[in-house]
Amino acid sequence: MKKPLILVSNDDGITSNGIRLLVELMQELGEVIVIAPDSPQSGMGHAITVGNTLRLSESHIFDGVKAYQCSGTPADCVKMAKGFVLKNRKVDLVVSGINHGSNTSISVIYSGTMSAALEGAIEDIPSIGFSVCDHSLEADFSYVKEHVLKIARLALKKGLPKGIALNVNFPAKKNEPIKGIKICRQTRAKWQEIFDRRVDPTGRQYFWLTGSFVNQDKGEDIDEWAIANNYTSVVPVSFDLTAYHAISTLNKEWDI
Amino acid sequence: MKKPLILVSNDDGITSNGIRLLVELMQELGEVIVIAPDSPQSGMGHAITVGNTLRLSESHIFDGVKAYQCSGTPADCVKMAKGFVLKNRKVDLVVSGINHGSNTSISVIYSGTMSAALEGAIEDIPSIGFSVCDHSLEADFSYVKEHVLKIARLALKKGLPKGIALNVNFPAKKNEPIKGIKICRQTRAKWQEIFDRRVDPTGRQYFWLTGSFVNQDKGEDIDEWAIANNYTSVVPVSFDLTAYHAISTLNKEWDI
Repeated sequence: MKKPLILVSNDDGITSNGIRLLVELMQELGEVIVIAPDSPQSGMGHAITVGNTLRLSESHIFDGVKAYQCSGTPADCVKMAKGFVLKNRKVDLVVSGINHGSNTSISVIYSGTMSAALEGAIEDIPSIGFSVCDHSLEADFSYVKEHVLKIARLALKKGLPKGIALNVNFPAKKNEPIKGIKICRQTRAKWQEIFDRRVDPTGRQYFWLTGSFVNQDKGEDIDEWAIANNYTSVVPVSFDLTAYHAISTLNKEWDI
Repeated sequence: MKKPLILVSNDDGITSNGIRLLVELMQELGEVIVIAPDSPQSGMGHAITVGNTLRLSESHIFDGVKAYQCSGTPADCVKMAKGFVLKNRKVDLVVSGINHGSNTSISVIYSGTMSAALEGAIEDIPSIGFSVCDHSLEADFSYVKEHVLKIARLALKKGLPKGIALNVNFPAKKNEPIKGIKICRQTRAKWQEIFDRRVDPTGRQYFWLTGSFVNQDKGEDIDEWAIANNYTSVVPVSFDLTAYHAISTLNKEWDI
């Protein structure tokens, strides 16, 4: 049987530990090709490069794996795969990550990792973003191997509903193994911004965006609950942003 | 009665014609404050600035209107409004645009204009992104004035469903006036990428991302239909990306 073709990308950049582990794991499942940003692209959301040029060059940092580094965003990387590098080949799976840091709840919309996965879904390819709820660049991610493989195998075997990508988050490493996998909804929570105002050596102000996560969603079907209870969370996410329930409300109440 | 406080942002930058018109119109409805990018930010999606500093400085380009330019993305601008500039004041409406170019269909996820509006919705503020389906930076947008005011007035008066922002697109100027306003769903369509490969003076390759819009969605309830038929389209959009229908599918079929 022909090996499935698996495209790997991320937002922490091609040299990060997370993508290295993901590449290793995907080699167990198929033929791997990597197209990833040449520098960290965290927080890039679904940005694409317009009004500016893109660079793409081959990289030899993964033994025996065809890989490219791209000057653009994670979404650009998947677009380059489809529009240039793999033009005439069918991709069977897009995986993004493993991200160093959580992409649960509202963070999904700021996440470059998830934009690569959503870009795959737009192309009708089963697509998954993987993130570990631990920002350390040196964290040991080996404890999530089994779940990464299980979820990727299921996506390859059974496919995913049309227009859907998976937002997979793993709890930070604990003393006990992860308890299991939960299919969840996105937690209704947000970041409370705090701007750390400073003054540069020339006397001009500048800011660091920081913040704290505020969660008032008490559901037990949410990704934050799963993570807090040492489960892997899987949220099916869509690039169709339409709030269907609001269409009839607006038609009725607005009378336009 | 106290005037409503209206925050204006965009992604074409604080000097664009579209935001100038929007500021003028909003002055008819309330007290206006502008926080907008200091340079064009098209295609920035929901990017935010992490791992880098932000600049913010007052701008005097709008007569009698408090305005700031920010080095960050549209989402950063709204975050700076809430987290720094307007810390203790309640914002009644966030408007973004008027964007030079369409943000219908899948373009909503790449749009900086819409990310400012969604950022407002995350803060529970009625929020609207306005775009004209004409990329020209010199286009005359005065024909959309009436609809901008009508929609902004309705949002101020009646509010919007919780967690919802409006993605408003106006057709390009025709010989006849716009026919009316339609509440729509997001068209299921995508961009077919074309990478224009070139070689720089040192012999290295670079690319321009271009593409053509491919629409196979034949619905008459979609934003593309409204625009093609000279209506203003209004799509209610959500920052909850959960594909709720897929949760039970995955629970059943995946058995994890």
